[in-house]
Amino acid sequence: MTAPMNPALAATFSPPVMEARRWLNGVDFPADRPLINVSQAAPVEPPPEGLRQAIAEAALNRPEAHLYGPVLGNPELRQAVAEEFSAGYGTPFQAGQVAITQGCNQAFCAAMTMLAGAGDEVILPVPWYFNHKMWLDMMGIVTRPLNCDDAMLPDAQAAARLIGPRTRAIVLVTPNNPTGAEYPADLVAQFYDLCRVHGIALVLDETYRDFDARDGAPHDVAGRAGADETLIQLYSFSKAYRLTGHRVGAMITGPDRLAEAEKFLDTVAISTSQLGQIGALWGMRNLQDWLAGERLEILSRRAAATRALSQMPGWQLRSCGAYFAWLRHPYAGSSADLAPRLVREAGVLALPGTMFMPEGDQQGATHFRIAFANVDAAGIEALAGRLTGFDG
Amino acid sequence: MTAPMNPALAATFSPPVMEARRWLNGVDFPADRPLINVSQAAPVEPPPEGLRQAIAEAALNRPEAHLYGPVLGNPELRQAVAEEFSAGYGTPFQAGQVAITQGCNQAFCAAMTMLAGAGDEVILPVPWYFNHKMWLDMMGIVTRPLNCDDAMLPDAQAAARLIGPRTRAIVLVTPNNPTGAEYPADLVAQFYDLCRVHGIALVLDETYRDFDARDGAPHDVAGRAGADETLIQLYSFSKAYRLTGHRVGAMITGPDRLAEAEKFLDTVAISTSQLGQIGALWGMRNLQDWLAGERLEILSRRAAATRALSQMPGWQLRSCGAYFAWLRHPYAGSSADLAPRLVREAGVLALPGTMFMPEGDQQGATHFRIAFANVDAAGIEALAGRLTGFDG
Repeated sequence: MTAPMNPALAATFSPPVMEARRWLNGVDFPADRPLINVSQAAPVEPPPEGLRQAIAEAALNRPEAHLYGPVLGNPELRQAVAEEFSAGYGTPFQAGQVAITQGCNQAFCAAMTMLAGAGDEVILPVPWYFNHKMWLDMMGIVTRPLNCDDAMLPDAQAAARLIGPRTRAIVLVTPNNPTGAEYPADLVAQFYDLCRVHGIALVLDETYRDFDARDGAPHDVAGRAGADETLIQLYSFSKAYRLTGHRVGAMITGPDRLAEAEKFLDTVAISTSQLGQIGALWGMRNLQDWLAGERLEILSRRAAATRALSQMPGWQLRSCGAYFAWLRHPYAGSSADLAPRLVREAGVLALPGTMFMPEGDQQGATHFRIAFANVDAAGIEALAGRLTGFDG
Repeated sequence: MTAPMNPALAATFSPPVMEARRWLNGVDFPADRPLINVSQAAPVEPPPEGLRQAIAEAALNRPEAHLYGPVLGNPELRQAVAEEFSAGYGTPFQAGQVAITQGCNQAFCAAMTMLAGAGDEVILPVPWYFNHKMWLDMMGIVTRPLNCDDAMLPDAQAAARLIGPRTRAIVLVTPNNPTGAEYPADLVAQFYDLCRVHGIALVLDETYRDFDARDGAPHDVAGRAGADETLIQLYSFSKAYRLTGHRVGAMITGPDRLAEAEKFLDTVAISTSQLGQIGALWGMRNLQDWLAGERLEILSRRAAATRALSQMPGWQLRSCGAYFAWLRHPYAGSSADLAPRLVREAGVLALPGTMFMPEGDQQGATHFRIAFANVDAAGIEALAGRLTGFDG
């Protein structure tokens, strides 16, 4: 007899990015019309040479770079994150509030496991980041979807109506994946207050914080008295320092909570890649000016995307920021069916909105996520031209 | 109101290795009597220079070494594992049966999530590997402990009596952590047949397979017709190639099952560290002779440990192999209380048996795990001397 499968695993969907890659199989792109890949929110270039050298140097000469480290991360990196967050949010953070994880996805998994078990509920604004939904599905945690308004912002009062006795957390991703929306500080504060009153956690996934268009702190909730009791912030080094292949992220909350998270991280990870941590630390110490320039470049691409994608007849740009645009298409068919055709007929790989929404939700069928950050201004113009010319 | 904690997380124990490290705080070890650390099953030296150079070279010159890879691992590494397993078990494996994970712990977590949800049951021989128990606890999966015999071997008939309607898998670790016992091929076959008849999975954690004293295949179940329906093998590159700090492991089972595991791995990991995968592949291709020598060295330490630890008045060596010895102490107190005292009074750091057993189990209180692999023959003699001289 064949061993059974956990039905919670079978019930969730397959990794969207891997599925989208399969649409490329067997498709040839002419040299004068190469694929425009706006499917994944990830750098495509390696990190700057100095960082690569720092990693290589450590691999050669630092024996500890090959050995287990502390479960919650190397002290220097935890300290560096605490200092950067202190500056970024205008309130003191301590190293003891920082855990290093094998990427920000894992930070999310750890946070959810800390908060919720099978049968508990978590509120996610829709469209959601698909890996969040997958994890909740696999853990048997019930996702309560929270619709966004026309500007792709969630509403705290609407969230309040979803809170029940099994609700354990609300998750906000800001700047948002997939919509690019930057949640205003007062919106984050409303959610914080809501969570605090109800004794549930506010999980802020700030993977794209380094590319926020706003100068200064994007919210003030980290500085509230006793914020650790409510707030869990998630961060990724992958985008800022082009370290996707090293898997380094962070979770920032209270030390008591991290002592519990340590159990999860020990079991699923033991420790985070030492070379990744070394690279991240080197980046934080040496690449601040470079990162500032990267941010300006992304912001200029955002401006180009806002311009180009809002002028396509029949299409509607719903929101745009950080790495992403959320774009409504003018066709009758579902984005799920149009997306593979876009690859073959327009040479564009973009993820359909259906990958970010509950099954059957009309918004999923009518939207695409455009990860524009990897495409320069000329490429964004070309993208708009191909989408406009697509005969959906 | 403070956000709640998942009670399943709060109910499991803290990472034993981190707890044991804390016993070292404030303890000075004289230069002529340094600490003998037999607490962790991990190399303490970096990998050979060629492997370090291969990693450094990739960090400098291979852009893809810094970028996301496929969720299930790089094709070359999956192929290399398939070839090594084909040779090692005398039956053909395909690359499509291999998933690369961020360490073998993560392979275990992925396997369990594939098989079992909250309320399901998994059978673990005791003493168990503590991270296995922690994961099951955190996932709300019920652990059914299976006692071992005097030779620290589990009995398939006893296991059969533990199988109920919610049982999803039996997990065997061979060579075993913490006991070092190498499970005979016919014992593994009995468990395989039992699992097959009952339609549950047999999960074989073979982290220490490279240090098995037996030449040739340690079991023949991988070659059985339709083995993938029953069998999941777990492997670690950490011990063989000294890559603990890179987090690279593997899970070997059927492609259909791996398509489900891909969901878990995408969500918790996205992909495994590229430099770790590059190092592991380089090791498999270039370090076979070196690894054979490492194995012989470990086997000679095993012989030294067997000799030294079986001649201590009042102590009893229960089993010994791979990296570990399972040692009964002669004192009235519990190993949990004796272990911190061993640090201070004998300069020995070893994990108490209580960390590997259900709470209250007498065997836990009366045993220590001795991870002898990091200590040379002279050090093992010194260890035996200190243990004998300890006034428990």
